[in-house]
Amino acid sequence: MSDQPVQPPEEGAEGAQKSKKQLQREKKEAEKAQKKQEIQEAQKQQQQQQQIQEEDYCVGRYGDLNLIQSQERTNRKWIKVGDVDQTLVNQVILVRARIHNSRVKGKLAFLVLRENYNTIQVVAEKGEFASAQMLKYISGIPLESVVDIEALVKQPNKEILSCTQKVELEVRSIKVVSRSLPMLPFQIEDASRRITDFEDGVQDMKQEEPQIKQDKQEKQDKNEKQQIQVMLKTRLDNRVIDLRTPAKQAIFRVQSGIGLLFREFLVENGFIEIHTPKLIGGTSEGGTNVFKLKYFNQDACLAQSPQLYKQMCLMADYDRVFEVAPVFRAENSNTHRHQCEFISMDIEMVIKEHFTELLDLMGDLCIYMFKGIEKRYQKEIEIISQQFPFEPFKIPEPVLKLTFEEGVKMLHEAGVNQDPNDDLDTTNEKTLGKLVREKYGTDFYILHRYPKKARPFYTMPCHDDPNYTLSYDFFMRGEEIVSGAQRVHDPELLMKQIKEKGIAVEPLKDYIDSFRYGAFPHGGCAFGLERVAFLYFNLKNIRNACMFPRDPVRLFP
Amino acid sequence: MSDQPVQPPEEGAEGAQKSKKQLQREKKEAEKAQKKQEIQEAQKQQQQQQQIQEEDYCVGRYGDLNLIQSQERTNRKWIKVGDVDQTLVNQVILVRARIHNSRVKGKLAFLVLRENYNTIQVVAEKGEFASAQMLKYISGIPLESVVDIEALVKQPNKEILSCTQKVELEVRSIKVVSRSLPMLPFQIEDASRRITDFEDGVQDMKQEEPQIKQDKQEKQDKNEKQQIQVMLKTRLDNRVIDLRTPAKQAIFRVQSGIGLLFREFLVENGFIEIHTPKLIGGTSEGGTNVFKLKYFNQDACLAQSPQLYKQMCLMADYDRVFEVAPVFRAENSNTHRHQCEFISMDIEMVIKEHFTELLDLMGDLCIYMFKGIEKRYQKEIEIISQQFPFEPFKIPEPVLKLTFEEGVKMLHEAGVNQDPNDDLDTTNEKTLGKLVREKYGTDFYILHRYPKKARPFYTMPCHDDPNYTLSYDFFMRGEEIVSGAQRVHDPELLMKQIKEKGIAVEPLKDYIDSFRYGAFPHGGCAFGLERVAFLYFNLKNIRNACMFPRDPVRLFP
Repeated sequence: MSDQPVQPPEEGAEGAQKSKKQLQREKKEAEKAQKKQEIQEAQKQQQQQQQIQEEDYCVGRYGDLNLIQSQERTNRKWIKVGDVDQTLVNQVILVRARIHNSRVKGKLAFLVLRENYNTIQVVAEKGEFASAQMLKYISGIPLESVVDIEALVKQPNKEILSCTQKVELEVRSIKVVSRSLPMLPFQIEDASRRITDFEDGVQDMKQEEPQIKQDKQEKQDKNEKQQIQVMLKTRLDNRVIDLRTPAKQAIFRVQSGIGLLFREFLVENGFIEIHTPKLIGGTSEGGTNVFKLKYFNQDACLAQSPQLYKQMCLMADYDRVFEVAPVFRAENSNTHRHQCEFISMDIEMVIKEHFTELLDLMGDLCIYMFKGIEKRYQKEIEIISQQFPFEPFKIPEPVLKLTFEEGVKMLHEAGVNQDPNDDLDTTNEKTLGKLVREKYGTDFYILHRYPKKARPFYTMPCHDDPNYTLSYDFFMRGEEIVSGAQRVHDPELLMKQIKEKGIAVEPLKDYIDSFRYGAFPHGGCAFGLERVAFLYFNLKNIRNACMFPRDPVRLFP
Repeated sequence: MSDQPVQPPEEGAEGAQKSKKQLQREKKEAEKAQKKQEIQEAQKQQQQQQQIQEEDYCVGRYGDLNLIQSQERTNRKWIKVGDVDQTLVNQVILVRARIHNSRVKGKLAFLVLRENYNTIQVVAEKGEFASAQMLKYISGIPLESVVDIEALVKQPNKEILSCTQKVELEVRSIKVVSRSLPMLPFQIEDASRRITDFEDGVQDMKQEEPQIKQDKQEKQDKNEKQQIQVMLKTRLDNRVIDLRTPAKQAIFRVQSGIGLLFREFLVENGFIEIHTPKLIGGTSEGGTNVFKLKYFNQDACLAQSPQLYKQMCLMADYDRVFEVAPVFRAENSNTHRHQCEFISMDIEMVIKEHFTELLDLMGDLCIYMFKGIEKRYQKEIEIISQQFPFEPFKIPEPVLKLTFEEGVKMLHEAGVNQDPNDDLDTTNEKTLGKLVREKYGTDFYILHRYPKKARPFYTMPCHDDPNYTLSYDFFMRGEEIVSGAQRVHDPELLMKQIKEKGIAVEPLKDYIDSFRYGAFPHGGCAFGLERVAFLYFNLKNIRNACMFPRDPVRLFP
């Protein structure tokens, strides 16, 4: 209602000057007429309301459900969105899913429902099954809300390109299970777009120079037609929303599968799963880059790896063991591939004679995992590649094995500086990866016989050259995913090597002593779980392969 | 040689008095004779030595190997002790194993080799295949040393009762791979004896009163015929040796299998494995009993459980998840069943209507695991029961479900005090377990609808009685192995319950917010991995089900 006073109707020509009585009478009549009009309007409104209520033949077929609190169990069957297909055409089914998209166009409401990475189109048309009121209700449900929809499965007239499911649902009832806030931190659609250089995440780990940011913004504006980009930080701050995007749904399904493939192969080959403590007395493996804490009245730290414990398990006659567990590194590295907490897939096994026994088994394991991913996760690979395009992973058999010295030679021939007695840095690793791909056509290879300086104290030296070790790294797309070696099983040699590295012997006493009562020659390796997914799918940043990553600045959520 | 001067021979009757010359001549002759004798003796010794060397036709078939350092790969085939059986009789095979026992008896050396929990008898008899020197060498190898033995598999004349393998090995060669120190912290045999009350471990967690110790010693002396008992502390201090005992070898093989069975069932039922962070910002779930640490310049703590994160995963559309990972509790409890670090097997899943959807699935999971253990680990169960005798685990189907109120009623009827609005303590849990076993004949049951006071803030209250919750515990032999509930998925109700428990809302912001953008009704539970093995096998102390346990006083090894 306007605050302006009601203007009397414009008067006619019958006279500008009227008697007071006449004026009073006219006023009364006007009031009477107004009253009549008001009553008429009220009646009309009432009639309209009645009509509306009468017209809403859909009452009871839409609305918000009470909080689901185990009130009853009807044993109705909910179908998963991904399972709704041609076989169900002409059947009325029930689904529970999120509203992914919503659009009302005249007498039609179009919804897209999403469950995991599957989507299906839903239509409500004003008519027998949807009243005007029901359509209005549907249009008011915020995106990402969870709904129960009963609907008829129909073959659409036109192929549906925008959804994973090729059939359509015609609404019979719609109930909101849980309403989303209307404003999301970002739209799922924006967070699902094909990843650009701007988002490769290498750069935006630390506060950037404004200039760089601006340059990038311009580049983005030009190339991406001003589409909204969701920055990694925003994604990580609102991780639960970001994890709903199709690519993330697929990545973490595959990652679960990588763990399964790893286990399957090892169990089939006689390994058992162990669990070693993450709370460690004294210092762990030398004491650098460890998180320290107070354990009641003792000093403790978090395990950097299960290395010493998995070796002790072998000395305790569990001859083939593996562990999949978090490890902790207090390393102040803000890069695209470092994490302060990650999942280490560790292997340790006895050998009879030679460290190539390890290489053979671990090479086979890698092949088993890579082939298994390809075979079991075709759909997920397709979904991931839509957001993170990647070149197919080349891996000819048998797995290429190069010595460290051969690798150094390749680098030298390409004019790259590399000390043959020191480790490769990240740049040289990547360069060598490219050289190897060019020469041997593989994205996966093994480099072995690293120099002593580059490896930890428990690494067995080569019998023919004490400057080199019986150690190896596995590379995917030029980055390390596995590191391992034959270990020293002789306590005296172990003591010598610990001292040479300048590490205190005393905190390692239990470990060293475990080799004094009959020791089996042995070795092993560790895979970074996130690295496998990160490099297989070329995800640009390891944070894209970790649900809730931890880096030097991130501890939430 | 004696230090006494050589006595001249007793002289005859020819004269007591001899000339000086005669004496000198006799002396010379005596010296000459002595020299001759010495030469003869030396020749004899030389001959003997030559003879010995000639006799040692076994040179090269025994001795200590050089440190195995990948010198060569012969591709010889080592057979596992457990695989040596009748099918190999009359074949010469190669095994690598420990010397478990060793006894030389005249011209015979008897060894027992041990690999994992399998043992086999080895005989070396002086003769064609074993020289005296070789027997001497064999008798000098310390127990627990690792040896390579080539031997002929033979059917023994008499059944071998003391070994797992029923055939015998006749030595052809024996090489020491790694020599044990001659003195072990304790004998494997002593540590393998049937467990007694003395060792149930409940009592010896803390420094005991001398009197109690003495009483026990007397009891032990009487009952155990003065057999040496290895105390739990000694076992844990020398864990690598203790873990070599057959029962421990079997326990941790079964435990690996429990994890596999858990995974198999869940993967089959559409769950994916997740990995959530153990380094948590702020305080975890309310902040009591947490280990705190410095994370770069932030305050962090170790996750007490993956509770909040697994729920967030569900809100991120991973609708059925599980995690097997360590959790950390800074609880100063020195009992037979508490650990400061243990493996939590967590489940979380969406439900459609009712928390019994959770109970049904988790009950089926338990049955799957228990039946799987029984089916797959017959040999291990037999071995474990030799050291830890246990009554077979009774579990009639369908799984018995009682409400908390019914449980309280049973306790009251048995004259036990129990507040119907508070949790059960350990004693009442055990008592109820006994009552349930008597009445229903089961070692496994579910108690549900716990009072609100006994459950955490994220537990969904009952719709019909706000003092009770949609929660449940699973019990094995009267002790809890699983705890779970339907969770609150409404952010406002969640905030209310957090405040009611007096917990700060701010550190839980990310968690609470995850329910604001459309939330699925859901619930879950957590199994203690060690508890499953500990209670299934009635191991008396949970430390017997953990390789390297952590309690308030133990941080090593």
